[in-house]
Amino acid sequence: MKDSSFDPGQPDGTNQSLGLGLPDGGTPELGTTYEIPARCGRAVRVKKGQVLTVSNPAGYQVCDFWIFNANDIEEYSSMEHLHTSLLSIFPKAGDGVASNLRRSLMTITEDTSPGIHDTVIANCDHARYKQLGLTEYHENCADNLRQSLIAIGLRAPAIPAPFNLWMNVPVGSDGGLSFQPPVAKPGDYMSFKADMDVIAVMSACPQDVTPVNGEGTSPAGLTFRVDG
Amino acid sequence: MKDSSFDPGQPDGTNQSLGLGLPDGGTPELGTTYEIPARCGRAVRVKKGQVLTVSNPAGYQVCDFWIFNANDIEEYSSMEHLHTSLLSIFPKAGDGVASNLRRSLMTITEDTSPGIHDTVIANCDHARYKQLGLTEYHENCADNLRQSLIAIGLRAPAIPAPFNLWMNVPVGSDGGLSFQPPVAKPGDYMSFKADMDVIAVMSACPQDVTPVNGEGTSPAGLTFRVDG
Repeated sequence: MKDSSFDPGQPDGTNQSLGLGLPDGGTPELGTTYEIPARCGRAVRVKKGQVLTVSNPAGYQVCDFWIFNANDIEEYSSMEHLHTSLLSIFPKAGDGVASNLRRSLMTITEDTSPGIHDTVIANCDHARYKQLGLTEYHENCADNLRQSLIAIGLRAPAIPAPFNLWMNVPVGSDGGLSFQPPVAKPGDYMSFKADMDVIAVMSACPQDVTPVNGEGTSPAGLTFRVDG
Repeated sequence: MKDSSFDPGQPDGTNQSLGLGLPDGGTPELGTTYEIPARCGRAVRVKKGQVLTVSNPAGYQVCDFWIFNANDIEEYSSMEHLHTSLLSIFPKAGDGVASNLRRSLMTITEDTSPGIHDTVIANCDHARYKQLGLTEYHENCADNLRQSLIAIGLRAPAIPAPFNLWMNVPVGSDGGLSFQPPVAKPGDYMSFKADMDVIAVMSACPQDVTPVNGEGTSPAGLTFRVDG
């Protein structure tokens, strides 16, 4: 028996994300706005005390978001631990994003949207598009995460459950879920203050089969900046 | 910078679980009932087509439950993928338990309880009890998972979000969560048919600070059997 053949760090396919690494292992220029092209991912180092702002020019675009401890990549954002720490599935300004070691990696300092985000649904991945009936490779958030880390010289140790900014998946009283278009407005943004040195990874979700990125829209880009 | 110091496979402490490995790497005698002592974990191999039944003699006892592909330990049960595949946070008889590769590892064939289980909350771990104010080591489900795998010669590649059988964490319309005592009856059981060769790991949750294992009760044991 081979113990392992699935490699969480290895993309199933690639796109432009592989070439979007910031210099010096993902180090941003403070105050500079960086683009995340539609369907792509990008990683950035945020030092303790610095603030990352992720912006949604289109409003209807979801950002799959992960945070890793910059000094230990096996410590990363964990939605199941976040649920315990917040006693909620909807994080809001003032809340810390918990790690799998139950430490706050970053704290949400501002959210201009109505606060509808998703913390229970997996990122899209190669298997998801196959299940949705596609026969060709489709860009996906898992591969964007993997490529974003490779682009700054790292490898994903796992594909953690994402914090899906602006994704709208209501949970009914019977526990039922449905995929709905985002309710964010064009230009909405969220800011996160780093509680330790971290690497944040953002994927402009390329999902265009279900309406998670809007109804009758095409996946759009996002922007981010880091301030000191 | 060291890439990684947290080791998901390494227990923070140990208990009796380390000595509970079934022979031949976790192979059960079909039709034999095995005990999971209170506060302990145990792993068992279930071949494709065989049925695992997990029983709850006390009724109020939660079982943290994980499933691994026996041929690739990096493929394991994933609650975030299960939410997508079921469009529900409450799995029920007939539902498959999805893996991180979006395949059904096992299918629930019977559930005698009212069907209240949890799929959004992390297993308890060393950090959880520290946050709850304990200063001494407290047995926990993460360490039971790790020990259960070590006891059959394997290592946990991650601590996946658990399927918490009989755990009662209602999700309010505002997304709020609360820890409530289980509503299962003494003797309730759940059966799972293996859709591929798997390793199932069960932890009789040792949580005795919050009421997830009942109000005014002590953590109890569980039993399981595998039928051909």
